[in-house]
Amino acid sequence: MVSLAVATSARATECSVVQALSATDTGSFVARQVPVLDLDFGGVVGDRHYGIARPANIRQARYYPRGTMIRNRRQLTVVSVEELAEVARRLELLEVRAEWLGANLLVEGIPRLSALPIGTRLLFLSGVGLVCEGVNQPCRLPGKVLQEHFPQSGAQSQFVRAAYGLRGIAASVECPGAIHSRDRAVVVPPEGYRSSANGLWS
Amino acid sequence: MVSLAVATSARATECSVVQALSATDTGSFVARQVPVLDLDFGGVVGDRHYGIARPANIRQARYYPRGTMIRNRRQLTVVSVEELAEVARRLELLEVRAEWLGANLLVEGIPRLSALPIGTRLLFLSGVGLVCEGVNQPCRLPGKVLQEHFPQSGAQSQFVRAAYGLRGIAASVECPGAIHSRDRAVVVPPEGYRSSANGLWS
Repeated sequence: MVSLAVATSARATECSVVQALSATDTGSFVARQVPVLDLDFGGVVGDRHYGIARPANIRQARYYPRGTMIRNRRQLTVVSVEELAEVARRLELLEVRAEWLGANLLVEGIPRLSALPIGTRLLFLSGVGLVCEGVNQPCRLPGKVLQEHFPQSGAQSQFVRAAYGLRGIAASVECPGAIHSRDRAVVVPPEGYRSSANGLWS
Repeated sequence: MVSLAVATSARATECSVVQALSATDTGSFVARQVPVLDLDFGGVVGDRHYGIARPANIRQARYYPRGTMIRNRRQLTVVSVEELAEVARRLELLEVRAEWLGANLLVEGIPRLSALPIGTRLLFLSGVGLVCEGVNQPCRLPGKVLQEHFPQSGAQSQFVRAAYGLRGIAASVECPGAIHSRDRAVVVPPEGYRSSANGLWS
């Protein structure tokens, strides 16, 4: 249960889950739709990104030597209908599907998902709580997948630039539970930020 | 080892550990100085705040019903020499010791520790990495302890207001290891922030 103070705030941004997805094949990052995501403190149970800890990779190269065991703050990735439509527009593609990006949640209703500050909470009506761990930096792999689906496009070479700032967020589990398609969540800024009517915060 | 790119940046803010502290008595939040803090993914081993998860309390009342098991993002608290001096000045006390506040680290060298954005990393030269989980909201208990040490003061009733925005930060462990007194750390803003010469970020 989301506390009434948050759930009924007139200024709260809400979003809905359009798709729940999981990548269970360790050989590929491409995800597939699932009826439910089971979450515990390690992330999505059965997903290839699951774990309390994981080895540092190239994304953390500025901070930790590769292979160092660090806390897994990239348990899930969340992308939005609005931002994927903009990526598709920029690449002149019919669509860019969340599954091709290896995302775990496709949500709708947050104007600028990728701009959410670190520490923003997504509080689901079921009680699940996710914490934004920052913008997801585009990697090259989805460009290859897009290219396979649209062989006539320039997606492979253009994806990273086109998706910059629109690639959604990484998130971690603060409160475990289950997320289903069509679940709704309240988007709550971290302390010190105020939400505004347009869904952006200052 | 902190990667060279971060450690040698001319703009990086550095800090040093003046005291390492731990509260091992579950009956009191007052901490005592220790030679070393042993950190794993649950926080300070043996400390009363240790744990991967813990029950939600009044601080999370806006987000989760009390007692709900949530990830422990308040594993350590960090306070600064500079800010505690300001609290002492406001309360007209000779000193405000980190141990009276139940802090785990007293650091020196960060101009406005409590203003660090969520997601800021403290990267120790030993390899330990902490992540800022946000400003620490003052609670009333340290006021009582201050009042015991300075019976003629008005600390008990004035502490919360005097310490607002100067109470340091909560932090969690991203990369485990040991922290000793006099260890040094680099303060690294989250992605999307830039550090500036005065130690504040924009």
